Amino acid sequence: MKKPLKVTITGAAGNIGYALAFRVAAGDVFGPDQPVILQLMELPMTMGPLGGVGMEMEDCAFPLVHDVVLTDDPKVGFRDTDYALLVGAKPRTKGMERSDLISENARIFSTQGRAINEYASREVRVMVVGNPANTNAMIAAANAPDLPRERFTAMARLDHNRAIGMLAKKTGALPGDVKRMIVWGNHSPTMHTDLTHCTVKGQPAMGLVPEDWYREVMVPTVQRRGAAVIEARGASSAASAAASVVDHVRDWFLGTPEGDWVSMGVHSDGSYGIQEGLVYSFPVTCKAGTYQIVPGLEVTAFGTERMKVTEKELQDERAVVADLL
Amino acid sequence: MKKPLKVTITGAAGNIGYALAFRVAAGDVFGPDQPVILQLMELPMTMGPLGGVGMEMEDCAFPLVHDVVLTDDPKVGFRDTDYALLVGAKPRTKGMERSDLISENARIFSTQGRAINEYASREVRVMVVGNPANTNAMIAAANAPDLPRERFTAMARLDHNRAIGMLAKKTGALPGDVKRMIVWGNHSPTMHTDLTHCTVKGQPAMGLVPEDWYREVMVPTVQRRGAAVIEARGASSAASAAASVVDHVRDWFLGTPEGDWVSMGVHSDGSYGIQEGLVYSFPVTCKAGTYQIVPGLEVTAFGTERMKVTEKELQDERAVVADLL
Repeated sequence: MKKPLKVTITGAAGNIGYALAFRVAAGDVFGPDQPVILQLMELPMTMGPLGGVGMEMEDCAFPLVHDVVLTDDPKVGFRDTDYALLVGAKPRTKGMERSDLISENARIFSTQGRAINEYASREVRVMVVGNPANTNAMIAAANAPDLPRERFTAMARLDHNRAIGMLAKKTGALPGDVKRMIVWGNHSPTMHTDLTHCTVKGQPAMGLVPEDWYREVMVPTVQRRGAAVIEARGASSAASAAASVVDHVRDWFLGTPEGDWVSMGVHSDGSYGIQEGLVYSFPVTCKAGTYQIVPGLEVTAFGTERMKVTEKELQDERAVVADLL
Repeated sequence: MKKPLKVTITGAAGNIGYALAFRVAAGDVFGPDQPVILQLMELPMTMGPLGGVGMEMEDCAFPLVHDVVLTDDPKVGFRDTDYALLVGAKPRTKGMERSDLISENARIFSTQGRAINEYASREVRVMVVGNPANTNAMIAAANAPDLPRERFTAMARLDHNRAIGMLAKKTGALPGDVKRMIVWGNHSPTMHTDLTHCTVKGQPAMGLVPEDWYREVMVPTVQRRGAAVIEARGASSAASAAASVVDHVRDWFLGTPEGDWVSMGVHSDGSYGIQEGLVYSFPVTCKAGTYQIVPGLEVTAFGTERMKVTEKELQDERAVVADLL
């Protein structure tokens, strides 16, 4: 039997963490023959509910779960971890400015970055889900100087999957028929959905949908989808966010399918003119825990303009947290 | 590609239904190469939140999901369905007597039984999760005279898995080391956990734990586990309940492993002296959508006494709903 992977989930008693933990436990991320040890973290004030999550985890008798650790101590939670899924973050509360939210979360993620640097496996992979996810990933990486910054990634897959789902519906296709979707930039309403290279059943997507539908309906709908889900469901996206974490980490671990790519928030190496060092969503291919930004794609004038807007937002976020970098 | 299976989930915007729908969509029940069409049902007053669930389902871009139908109309929800997972039920509210709860749910499940009888696939399999699950399954079956009653089953797997998890923890084993667990009777606090035939790594479980721990700690702890989870988590079991539905239906569909069995609420054929026609949890083996009650197991005097107590509770529940049978 394979050696268990240690998987840390922060905010594991929250809605996304709760949905995610059970999908990891069921084998949906690392496969049906890969045991896991779950290291579930919460804030001290939320350890009670986390105890309930631990009880439910035990109650599932998952064959792949070799142990469950419940802790509010980063030393314990990140100890020897192979995958750190940083879901927990402070949500924006009434009257809070966006810059306050960024600053408060920056402190959390700098602390977590230092703990990962000190305690995690030297092979650790990190995915940040808690918002602002891109900037939080940049901060965590900056505070983990002993680890390559390529190990720190941010959620873009939820937007990527939303774009695929929307295009599949519009064209009467199945999600599996849609390939080479791109969502560029920040995991925020400035993100940019790009169909330039996208195909549906092998046909160029831009030949299947009206240009104005793409620009005026699809792009803004994907940007504002999170708010629309809250409006309808009376609660924020949880199962779909968890599903996109499953997809992001599974593809990073097992690889992307031949001929396709996925959108991931990764450190810019200057590709596509995006400022080096920002964590920005690019199209990437993955293989066995590594990724490569897809090089040399044509970008339209419309795309370039929008990619600059979301880059600017990330530069502004970085300015707010400069003292932690 | 295989023909999609139609899977109905009632109460799909509730906590268990929400957790369950995404695991079905991910392929955890019917396997990674079996497409599904999800027919998600809610009450008219909950169609708004169900719309949000439908949005999130679209946002996941699940390759196996070929369509999602959202409806409050049983004609639509049960149309040609292959698997009907009846999760939704009226919860007990303050001041409500248990017999009132049973009566109110009996009306819901008699209506659903009639709709399944009229609209579902002739090969439909039904699993009842909404409480009182056993009696609700009996009522649904009684109102579906054109379908064999063997197609109507009730949740016992949550209790079965809880017992496995607890025994694994107690003996320092992994859940996968525990075989031949039995939970007899009603999915209620009268259920009876039986270790007589249970093994851990091939060793008889009763030789590994003290008899008084089994009788005085394990049996009542499994019975009251649901309340303990609510107490700790501040919410009732959702992910673990959904996981046990996944296990129940997957094993019914794909079969139980050689040499092991599972606990399922099924119509008694008089086995083990349990009154014929009650829906009672027995140890069963499954193969390709059929099940067989494991015959001829020895039952201890303690077990017989407890099995009668839970049978009596089911007889009392049946008396409350006699007019709907």
